Amino acid sequence: MQNTYAIGIDVGGTNTDIGMVRDDSKIVARRSLPTGNYSMLEPYVFDIMEQIKDMVAQGDPEKGVASMAVSDLTGIGMGAPNGNFYTGCVEWAPNLTIKGLLDFKQEFAKYTDRPFVLSNDANAAAYGEFVYGGARGMNHFIMITLGTGVGSGIVVDGRLVHGSTGTAGELGHNILIPDGRRCSCGRKGCLEAYTSARGIVQTYVELRKEKGAPQEAPHMPGWITSDTEDSDITSKMIGDAANAGDPLAKETYRMVAEWLGLACANACTFSAPEAIFLMGGPTKVGDPLLLPLREAFEANLLNIYKGRCEIKMSQLSTNEVAILGAAALIKMK
Amino acid sequence: MQNTYAIGIDVGGTNTDIGMVRDDSKIVARRSLPTGNYSMLEPYVFDIMEQIKDMVAQGDPEKGVASMAVSDLTGIGMGAPNGNFYTGCVEWAPNLTIKGLLDFKQEFAKYTDRPFVLSNDANAAAYGEFVYGGARGMNHFIMITLGTGVGSGIVVDGRLVHGSTGTAGELGHNILIPDGRRCSCGRKGCLEAYTSARGIVQTYVELRKEKGAPQEAPHMPGWITSDTEDSDITSKMIGDAANAGDPLAKETYRMVAEWLGLACANACTFSAPEAIFLMGGPTKVGDPLLLPLREAFEANLLNIYKGRCEIKMSQLSTNEVAILGAAALIKMK
Repeated sequence: MQNTYAIGIDVGGTNTDIGMVRDDSKIVARRSLPTGNYSMLEPYVFDIMEQIKDMVAQGDPEKGVASMAVSDLTGIGMGAPNGNFYTGCVEWAPNLTIKGLLDFKQEFAKYTDRPFVLSNDANAAAYGEFVYGGARGMNHFIMITLGTGVGSGIVVDGRLVHGSTGTAGELGHNILIPDGRRCSCGRKGCLEAYTSARGIVQTYVELRKEKGAPQEAPHMPGWITSDTEDSDITSKMIGDAANAGDPLAKETYRMVAEWLGLACANACTFSAPEAIFLMGGPTKVGDPLLLPLREAFEANLLNIYKGRCEIKMSQLSTNEVAILGAAALIKMK
Repeated sequence: MQNTYAIGIDVGGTNTDIGMVRDDSKIVARRSLPTGNYSMLEPYVFDIMEQIKDMVAQGDPEKGVASMAVSDLTGIGMGAPNGNFYTGCVEWAPNLTIKGLLDFKQEFAKYTDRPFVLSNDANAAAYGEFVYGGARGMNHFIMITLGTGVGSGIVVDGRLVHGSTGTAGELGHNILIPDGRRCSCGRKGCLEAYTSARGIVQTYVELRKEKGAPQEAPHMPGWITSDTEDSDITSKMIGDAANAGDPLAKETYRMVAEWLGLACANACTFSAPEAIFLMGGPTKVGDPLLLPLREAFEANLLNIYKGRCEIKMSQLSTNEVAILGAAALIKMK
């Protein structure tokens, strides 16, 4: 039987990843665009379509498939922050440089009549985990994605929760600390303000300001030294330092774990999931996040949920899950 | 066509209400037992069954139905704190004097083979609102019940969310204020600690300790005077005082509204409901709660949900919704 191909697009605040996905879940080709360079929808979608056309034109040599056209695709699935499943629009996404109500569905329709399905980027990731990953066979689970922002996809009774608006599942903007840190959404105290890459850096910088970098840092490989400028510090650098034993970096991730553990425990009071999956750059740090996270989660969990929900890492590569999930959205329709 | 009858039982921390419900949603007969007098499951269910037998024995004179037997019922539905839909057990409900894992399904099976369906008391209320009340036709809504405790029932895609454990929908135990007030569940900062009847009284008492009762209170009808003992103050008294203009009582409800508004806004990030319904004693105060609540809700709402979710009062009488919802659970199975 002939293979079929769909496009999966993951719109991140920093990069847009575009992949051509074979129906056996292999990403045949992929491209990337710098999302942050765009301030208008039309040129952005134009450039995405150029990449798509180029990818399909290359075909799938591994399967002996020669050049294809966009019309040969089963469809285009897109995961984007504030992506609305019902309308096909991205609605005022705080982390995108393209502002306002963005009618992607209409814009893509200018180029192709193949099906276009949009959802929240984290919903797409959750759907990818559901179809291809560790959530296979689970009826109730939550995916939390840490990155530039913090997103979530919620599956209840085996279905993605889109809510009355099409934009349900924004746990990153659950207010965790009333009147807390300023968030990118303009409000205060959201989970995202504490556990996004930016939030993690902010915590480190605040801790260092208060306590100073460890005096032995210059002699310890991988530790962050006091002469590293605040603006040069990344969450990855803090993660690496934590794994190298830097006490300030470890303390940072311990605090991140406490915030995230509280948020996960709170999420259980909603849908009592079997598992909460994590994905995204800041989760790659591993134990410095996961060990205190599981502790904080259990400590904050209502007794009736104790021992009945696991915190797990996504079983798909962070690199692939978003594209696979976005492409899989086509099947959901 | 002949009418059918089901039993709806609402297990509250204080009282247990038992009603015989005709299929046209009329409560034909009702009884009450003081839940707090029981510390064991067996005598509690025995006494409930005695009341049920007595009610069915009276028949339904209005419809010319003479004495019936328990075996004539379509079933028994029960709403109880921490009621597990899947197992028929109440699991360690903090507000009940009967402690532990209570297998109601098994216990009722000793008396009758008619269907027995158990759910969270707030789930039952939500289901009542869905079948008979203001949520008819809504696919996504949340019911929050304020009383001795704070419960919630969540409807997503037209179905009650029971989660992987059967005990989903416990927004009363969402931790709203990290490291905040001690809650009846043993943790700290839960919504319930702030917006249950007990939480409302605590807020008033704390405010009065800090600011003193208004000096003019003795001359103002309905205001709470400084010689009213803390232990005599009820949430109803505070509600009445708020409506009579007592500034301390008004301030109390304004604070309750801020906490509840924040919780409602957070709930929207989960399931993006069309409406959040409120019921229970403390909501009867009306404007002193509802006006600041709607304000706090909008102020805390993520922009994509603004104007897209309404705070509403249950359209069923507080007196009836729990029994009707419990009886309606029979139909859901």
